[in-house]
Amino acid sequence: MPLLESEKDDAEQLTSGTMKAVVFRGPGQFQLEAKPVPKAGPGDAIIRVRLTTICGTDIHIIRGEYPVHSGLTIGHEAVGTIHELGAGVTGYKMGQRVLVGAITPCGQCEPCLGGHTSQCGGPIGGWRLGNTIDGVQAEYFRVPFAQANLAAIPDHLADEDVILLADIASTGFSAAESGKIRLGDTVAVFAQGPIGLCATLGARLMGASEIFAIDTDPNRLKMSAQFGATVTLSADRDPVKEIMDRTNGRGVDVAIEALGVQTTFENALRVLTPGGILSSVGVYSGHLSIPLEGFHAGLADQTIVTTLCPGGKERMRRLMRLVETKRMNLRPLLTHTFDLENILEAYKLFESRQQGVLKVAIRVK
Amino acid sequence: MPLLESEKDDAEQLTSGTMKAVVFRGPGQFQLEAKPVPKAGPGDAIIRVRLTTICGTDIHIIRGEYPVHSGLTIGHEAVGTIHELGAGVTGYKMGQRVLVGAITPCGQCEPCLGGHTSQCGGPIGGWRLGNTIDGVQAEYFRVPFAQANLAAIPDHLADEDVILLADIASTGFSAAESGKIRLGDTVAVFAQGPIGLCATLGARLMGASEIFAIDTDPNRLKMSAQFGATVTLSADRDPVKEIMDRTNGRGVDVAIEALGVQTTFENALRVLTPGGILSSVGVYSGHLSIPLEGFHAGLADQTIVTTLCPGGKERMRRLMRLVETKRMNLRPLLTHTFDLENILEAYKLFESRQQGVLKVAIRVK
Amino acid sequence: MPLLESEKDDAEQLTSGTMKAVVFRGPGQFQLEAKPVPKAGPGDAIIRVRLTTICGTDIHIIRGEYPVHSGLTIGHEAVGTIHELGAGVTGYKMGQRVLVGAITPCGQCEPCLGGHTSQCGGPIGGWRLGNTIDGVQAEYFRVPFAQANLAAIPDHLADEDVILLADIASTGFSAAESGKIRLGDTVAVFAQGPIGLCATLGARLMGASEIFAIDTDPNRLKMSAQFGATVTLSADRDPVKEIMDRTNGRGVDVAIEALGVQTTFENALRVLTPGGILSSVGVYSGHLSIPLEGFHAGLADQTIVTTLCPGGKERMRRLMRLVETKRMNLRPLLTHTFDLENILEAYKLFESRQQGVLKVAIRVK
Amino acid sequence: MPLLESEKDDAEQLTSGTMKAVVFRGPGQFQLEAKPVPKAGPGDAIIRVRLTTICGTDIHIIRGEYPVHSGLTIGHEAVGTIHELGAGVTGYKMGQRVLVGAITPCGQCEPCLGGHTSQCGGPIGGWRLGNTIDGVQAEYFRVPFAQANLAAIPDHLADEDVILLADIASTGFSAAESGKIRLGDTVAVFAQGPIGLCATLGARLMGASEIFAIDTDPNRLKMSAQFGATVTLSADRDPVKEIMDRTNGRGVDVAIEALGVQTTFENALRVLTPGGILSSVGVYSGHLSIPLEGFHAGLADQTIVTTLCPGGKERMRRLMRLVETKRMNLRPLLTHTFDLENILEAYKLFESRQQGVLKVAIRVK
Repeated sequence: MPLLESEKDDAEQLTSGTMKAVVFRGPGQFQLEAKPVPKAGPGDAIIRVRLTTICGTDIHIIRGEYPVHSGLTIGHEAVGTIHELGAGVTGYKMGQRVLVGAITPCGQCEPCLGGHTSQCGGPIGGWRLGNTIDGVQAEYFRVPFAQANLAAIPDHLADEDVILLADIASTGFSAAESGKIRLGDTVAVFAQGPIGLCATLGARLMGASEIFAIDTDPNRLKMSAQFGATVTLSADRDPVKEIMDRTNGRGVDVAIEALGVQTTFENALRVLTPGGILSSVGVYSGHLSIPLEGFHAGLADQTIVTTLCPGGKERMRRLMRLVETKRMNLRPLLTHTFDLENILEAYKLFESRQQGVLKVAIRVK
Repeated sequence: MPLLESEKDDAEQLTSGTMKAVVFRGPGQFQLEAKPVPKAGPGDAIIRVRLTTICGTDIHIIRGEYPVHSGLTIGHEAVGTIHELGAGVTGYKMGQRVLVGAITPCGQCEPCLGGHTSQCGGPIGGWRLGNTIDGVQAEYFRVPFAQANLAAIPDHLADEDVILLADIASTGFSAAESGKIRLGDTVAVFAQGPIGLCATLGARLMGASEIFAIDTDPNRLKMSAQFGATVTLSADRDPVKEIMDRTNGRGVDVAIEALGVQTTFENALRVLTPGGILSSVGVYSGHLSIPLEGFHAGLADQTIVTTLCPGGKERMRRLMRLVETKRMNLRPLLTHTFDLENILEAYKLFESRQQGVLKVAIRVK
Repeated sequence: MPLLESEKDDAEQLTSGTMKAVVFRGPGQFQLEAKPVPKAGPGDAIIRVRLTTICGTDIHIIRGEYPVHSGLTIGHEAVGTIHELGAGVTGYKMGQRVLVGAITPCGQCEPCLGGHTSQCGGPIGGWRLGNTIDGVQAEYFRVPFAQANLAAIPDHLADEDVILLADIASTGFSAAESGKIRLGDTVAVFAQGPIGLCATLGARLMGASEIFAIDTDPNRLKMSAQFGATVTLSADRDPVKEIMDRTNGRGVDVAIEALGVQTTFENALRVLTPGGILSSVGVYSGHLSIPLEGFHAGLADQTIVTTLCPGGKERMRRLMRLVETKRMNLRPLLTHTFDLENILEAYKLFESRQQGVLKVAIRVK
Repeated sequence: MPLLESEKDDAEQLTSGTMKAVVFRGPGQFQLEAKPVPKAGPGDAIIRVRLTTICGTDIHIIRGEYPVHSGLTIGHEAVGTIHELGAGVTGYKMGQRVLVGAITPCGQCEPCLGGHTSQCGGPIGGWRLGNTIDGVQAEYFRVPFAQANLAAIPDHLADEDVILLADIASTGFSAAESGKIRLGDTVAVFAQGPIGLCATLGARLMGASEIFAIDTDPNRLKMSAQFGATVTLSADRDPVKEIMDRTNGRGVDVAIEALGVQTTFENALRVLTPGGILSSVGVYSGHLSIPLEGFHAGLADQTIVTTLCPGGKERMRRLMRLVETKRMNLRPLLTHTFDLENILEAYKLFESRQQGVLKVAIRVK
């Protein structure tokens, strides 16, 4: 697997100076450590981080629920400036402000050239940062395949305007896109965490009519109304029945799963109209069961599609255009901001789900 | 062509009572005449008109620019109530308020079953009302294939809320849909008459970022900003250069032609990025020329697609859902209202383009 | 549900003369009975059967595994001649030879107009013949929505050339079509019964390169090589490992499930490459389990799509064109022929799977 | 335009040793010259040519009809072995036999990441070899973005089995693919030169039923029957009328233009059924005219799509799979073979269209 070549030797590539980074040391063990500043190999870029975030996936990682190797720097959403460019990376200049997607495809392997850039080099292979190579909760990080992954940020957009495009907006929107939402479609979005909220927004941006948003948390439901939901439903009060009643038994054209558990997956299928699409962006941690009746014995022309966050600089450019033209504003999702020095405190808050926290921004000075 | 069978005998089907109708008698000759109220054959419905409109196409017809037979009732956008149902039409009741699309597909011929419902029975065959059979600028009209074409209107929507879905919104939106606009796409819409304005709105509803609206009329450009344009450009000031400059030479992902003349067609092609789509809904009256350079010698992976207004009750239902959920409001397009008795005066105003007229509603009492 | 209106009163519509029909009387109980010849209501046609078949689904029905009402005539694949036409059916003549698809969409309801003709009127609603209304294992049967469902057979094609297009070829091909097979795709087809064989043929016709066919029966595997499989694999010898080895761990672009059980479904998922499509046409009778690892935790951009046999006269016309132009020959699947009088014997053979039986033709004189 | 950086300095990169190359010196002037063997920069590969061809486009170039700079090496279809690999190119070894597509996308620019790899860096930008950088009619050539463009050839395939995949097969097939040919579609292919023949083959591979092949040359029509045409028509005998008659006035679902002149373009449009697709792969050298009636005034839901040869190693891999699995054999197109030393003679034959020449292979020893 040649593309992974450059992933092996993070250690060797580190050189001059040290930096702070959030490092995973085993389940429940992670801390701010000093690490060497990485150095750019051919095709790489080194980014000086300005703003990063904590993601729900990071929580899975520090708990040991999603396996990564000890010593890894965590984090995969970042805005920063170009600190170094490796051989062959052209069209950029030092100090330029860029957004880097959570997924960093090479653009040159068979899956990438076949259009499956998130599956770069193999299953889930496009997700490198904070997964198979050092991530972005640090002062600096290395971007592999930089030519494909550095997206210049327009001057008049703030870091906070674009940081969430790197993962949660790209993922949430892809739920709507893979659902092939058409003008006037009825949509249900199960779970209204940051990704679910972006799925709701994506459904609205693509022209859905009725959008049902389902969650257990009243605060998140309130936010979902701001993000485009036309009906908010408590997950505790039989949302399947509610949706079937409100659609006169017809169900929805597109059902989005944005949590990754059996209940939401199953509910999404049960409200799906014949010919409809269940678009899943949740990360599952166990076998799933498909209920026979929701599936109509496999005879109802239904589709179940899963999507991993699309990355690459063209995706980031395209999403930034939506911010620039004021089609959307994701800043309400950034409920709290911390400095990198205090990131452990930020993790605590984010895990607690207290204080109406949705996304935590980490400022690196 | 068996499907056209029921179109032959408008005359025979007329029975009890007379009504007023706008009848074409030759180029420049049309008037309000008394005609028998039509009668429903098998599969038909007779609709008592409540609200209709005048369309740009009607102007072409009365001028003799688009050929129809003498004696034809004109008009193809209507809201009304069910007055009579032919044999085999089920699931409706007398007096029910319905919207009928301008295009009335049978749903059962090869083109319809193949998904090309506007080409029902043959080229442009789905457009019957006010074209090959009597239209809707009358007190009553006959709907062929009523089972496929009567769309029940939700009680809380006014006639004025939905009337424009019958043609111009369905057409304008189809321009955006055939253009396969994706989240973040840059779009240009050439001409901002009622259909162009709906194309602009459709582009916005589908998630375009930058939307360039081009027209010669400052009032229409002003309206286009209300309908979603982010940049309005005068057609008189080299819009091609403007758009290329503002996109840094990249051009647009989707260019929509909504007028039907060489200049707008050509300009749409000239601003199209490689891989882009020119979506045309204009009605052309002469040969078109494709400029070699805009076409990049046929090597730039460009697409030119034409679309005739989609009809049928499912299309109408879907568009009404967008009104119900307040995703759009087309009423600002209805700038004037007249009674059927005064429709000739309405035609005069509509043709004059005076008084900021966009669409004229005709109320039938 | 107005469309089902005409389904209620099979009894009332029966009139002059009696005929023989295979009637279901309860699990394990079915026989050749005398029944009145049906009569055409508005939009209907009555077909005099020339050739019909026994389908695997019929076996499920007579065993009571798929619920239908007692007294129902079974069967859904038929070629015959037009015996009577109801009001409003035009463009046909008495005695004309026609093919009727197993699925008989109305073409005029919301699902049909929305492009989901097999889901006519509601989930699985397009399947009427031999399911919700009397089927075709009889001397005569009634076709609802005849205008949409009578496909004229070209003179030079024999009944045996086209009979299997009604269900198994349309279904098998739809597996390949919903899998969106592209030129050069690698495909695996799990199970090589008549539908699986047609899926294999469909994959070949659409331009697949490597086609793995999997079954337990060596005879069926042999037939699959004739139908386009490039590699045949015994289901008993770890086909997942075989396929992964032979594709160097890459897996297949499209995996087709043509049986309807957990093992084949699961295997299909396990050999699916990231970004690939699992296209399912099996009829499931229990909950399905999605294995976490085959699903890559929902992150591998995979799609699972189910399809019910497409019907309607345009589908039948299109498939007959493939026979006319000698792109395929389905007659090898018709391994045995019986007269209607001896159909119980035919059922016995078909159930036994002896004598290399694949499909049984029933000739009605 | 950073991607073009590496294209500027062909001269500087040349180093050790000299080689023979076909060099363009002005309209009508081209010859076999001695040139330095190119050297690999970062991301490049140097290929030792084994087999190359002459293409119709090369004829346009040497005649001065398609502008390239003086001193350029011509040619864009090649099989060879890896002679040198630049920094960052991994997963290959010296001496390995590879196929390089005519189009060499970078995979990392906005158009590439957006899925338009042939428009790499800008309009037609993916076509570099023998156009904007030195081509392959030489003993060695440089491949830019080698990681994306070196496709390993399976051992058991001969050079002659795969050489035509580089351009004409990829182009011809893309005509069928962009035409979205479905099972049972009726197709017409205008012009049966090498690309038209491959379009015919592509139509067949994708499952067309009737395929009309049109050309003026009886030999090419004969070959088209071998490549899948079901009806061959002389271009001299009103093919539009012929096709409309033979389709009962319906026309074709997909019409392919494979020549690049007004007549074939116009004829393709005139035989196109409503809702159909005109797929164009011809290279046009003048403005095109769209006939109003063939275009049905822009109301017949027709599509015109142009496609430039898809390249990149995944495309080549995929096409080689079709050869490996014996779905096709392109060797009959290679009617003549010459050594590089005698290539001027080969050009003479190719231009003359004598001796039944279709494609000329050039062997480099």
